[in-house]
Amino acid sequence: MAVNLALPIPEQLFSIVGVTIGVTEAGIRKQDRKDLTVMLIEPGASVSGVFTTNRFCAAPVQICREHLDGGAEIRAILINTGNANAGTGVDGLARANATCEALARKLNVDAAQVLPFSTGVIMEPLPSDRIEAGLAAAIADAQPGHWFRAAEGIMTTDTQPKAFSVRLEIAGQPVHVTGISKGAGMIRPNMATMLGFIATDACVSQSVMKELALELAEGSFNRVTVDGDTSTNDSLIVIASNKANHSTIDVLESGAGLLLKQAMLAVARQLAQAIVRDGEGATKFITVQVEGGRDAAECRKVAYAVAHSPLVKTAFFASDPNLGRILAAVGYAGIDDLNQETIELFLDDVHVVTRGGRNSQYREEDGQRVMKKAEILVRIGLGRGACTDTVWTCDFSHDYVTINADYRS
Amino acid sequence: MAVNLALPIPEQLFSIVGVTIGVTEAGIRKQDRKDLTVMLIEPGASVSGVFTTNRFCAAPVQICREHLDGGAEIRAILINTGNANAGTGVDGLARANATCEALARKLNVDAAQVLPFSTGVIMEPLPSDRIEAGLAAAIADAQPGHWFRAAEGIMTTDTQPKAFSVRLEIAGQPVHVTGISKGAGMIRPNMATMLGFIATDACVSQSVMKELALELAEGSFNRVTVDGDTSTNDSLIVIASNKANHSTIDVLESGAGLLLKQAMLAVARQLAQAIVRDGEGATKFITVQVEGGRDAAECRKVAYAVAHSPLVKTAFFASDPNLGRILAAVGYAGIDDLNQETIELFLDDVHVVTRGGRNSQYREEDGQRVMKKAEILVRIGLGRGACTDTVWTCDFSHDYVTINADYRS
Repeated sequence: MAVNLALPIPEQLFSIVGVTIGVTEAGIRKQDRKDLTVMLIEPGASVSGVFTTNRFCAAPVQICREHLDGGAEIRAILINTGNANAGTGVDGLARANATCEALARKLNVDAAQVLPFSTGVIMEPLPSDRIEAGLAAAIADAQPGHWFRAAEGIMTTDTQPKAFSVRLEIAGQPVHVTGISKGAGMIRPNMATMLGFIATDACVSQSVMKELALELAEGSFNRVTVDGDTSTNDSLIVIASNKANHSTIDVLESGAGLLLKQAMLAVARQLAQAIVRDGEGATKFITVQVEGGRDAAECRKVAYAVAHSPLVKTAFFASDPNLGRILAAVGYAGIDDLNQETIELFLDDVHVVTRGGRNSQYREEDGQRVMKKAEILVRIGLGRGACTDTVWTCDFSHDYVTINADYRS
Repeated sequence: MAVNLALPIPEQLFSIVGVTIGVTEAGIRKQDRKDLTVMLIEPGASVSGVFTTNRFCAAPVQICREHLDGGAEIRAILINTGNANAGTGVDGLARANATCEALARKLNVDAAQVLPFSTGVIMEPLPSDRIEAGLAAAIADAQPGHWFRAAEGIMTTDTQPKAFSVRLEIAGQPVHVTGISKGAGMIRPNMATMLGFIATDACVSQSVMKELALELAEGSFNRVTVDGDTSTNDSLIVIASNKANHSTIDVLESGAGLLLKQAMLAVARQLAQAIVRDGEGATKFITVQVEGGRDAAECRKVAYAVAHSPLVKTAFFASDPNLGRILAAVGYAGIDDLNQETIELFLDDVHVVTRGGRNSQYREEDGQRVMKKAEILVRIGLGRGACTDTVWTCDFSHDYVTINADYRS
């Protein structure tokens, strides 16, 4: 059960002119499951991406980087679930390339204009024959209104599809942003999430698109964690179909650029937070906000130490205000000259720790009250400076163990 | 249930001349539980220690550092369970000092000659009155043969006491080493374990004792991890009572020094591994050995990434050879210029991955066979150099969640 995560309503997801989506059941790992998705992009779009920093990055990630760096106009995106095509060596690259070539032939474009994505089990050979066999059905299914279907088509251990849409105006012209993501486990994106796709009909130059992709990842997917495991396949792709009627945004820090960035960041954050809300076994959604750091990086260090601590996460699962575990995580986060006497800790509005010790006003029943909630804000004051950063995470439950002990069986 | 961890046999633990141990039930957190231990050390001993790197280190750790740095001859060790006296600010320091003073008065020594240790719940006030009230009974109980009792007296969520003993000869004279430890959760020692005490009757100068403490920690406690949480209270104390009949070791890298180090390291390793074998919820004991690194530090990085990955640990729990998760952890361990094409992976004698991809000879049933064992060697070849390092860890089970979700209740 995801934490406070509404099921997207298909009719409320805006289509993006210039992008159509088709989904099919290709039987990649299991039968009767949407597991193959294509996004077809009309000529003239700007496309950019950010990918995992995992050095064991998957074959499709390597190919995406190549194709984007090569500068060919991207015309199609090909996504399969059931197999991550990671840890598969040279054979994995050959199979991923074969699927790009097969799709390119059917669309009459170059293979370099296709971006491939895979998610699922690591270290098993990609059944590229089944993917190739499914392409015709996926293409035949392509419609602008299929974003919800695509959100379903990219799910693995997710319990529900994740999609968000916003509408804005740029220079009086309507502009739309729609995105989908999938996550669930092996989630500590480092540059992007497991899989996230955000499209807009806004007009954006290719160079601004690159900047946008990085900034969106930094402000959303790169701030969530389920289990601290950075996946081999994390990818965030942003697409501007350039079909709206305003003039092209060629400077991000312009009025129109900032408007669009704000709208896309809202979608990206909701998608990223949705991954945490639907994190494997999650029963709580936890915001770890660290303030008073000398720089944002040290705030992040502390926030991640807290967000990754199995002891903190199991205490949240149990609704047990065993909050010393948070202090311990702050202490080992890696700030060498941390002074415990300037540390403050709040749980929502409850002031738990002051000057590194238990606040004499703090009553356990107040901590207990907050710990029982499904959404909790952990606010840590370092008392060293003026910087702040935030990480979103979930708790650590029996179901996480069950899901990951049974995932392949 | 601990993994292949024999219960120590009290009669097989050697007494250490010059050290007596007393244990009592002081009712610190729960009734009818051995929770207060004193070690009384005769004049003339050499004592040294290594402590947690957690910046939120507990009040007793701060006092131990002070007392050892001050150079006074250590005459007593005072250990309580049930309360960690961490995250307790100035009040915590005052209470820990009060217990040192109370014990010092009874022994007619200075408070600076007492080392205090606490383990248990964080951020609750130390019931120093109950400790002081229990001191008389603990002192009255003191005997040289009470090492097993002490191992029981320092347990928290441990399922069994941990103690090891060896006997050696230096210059034809008998020398003994006996140690105890406790662990279970919040275990990723960084300088020492939760609590470890190792004593010998060997004759060792104070300066060699300092070197020894560091080297023992590096080779044992600093290489184990249960959950990656570095505790606020980790402490390793080594005591040489200087009662044996050989001449004093004043150079560690001498024949006698190396003999003693080897013997003490054997005890320290067994104590450290015992903590993993009895790790919270552990069902498997896993050795992660990383070879072919440019330096030992990068081998450790990779070993810890694997040993801390919740996905890897749950796969071990499930006996599921979902070994791509190990590759993913290798990939995000933080070696920026890692080349996946030189990576090799063995599970015991089974060659799983070669050149970064699945070994074509590898059969899943072979992986399955090894995964079902209670003791597993994960051997990772980086193919970058000649260095190696090893970390010991356990799997991640439902019981870990249960234990840590219920710890305080």
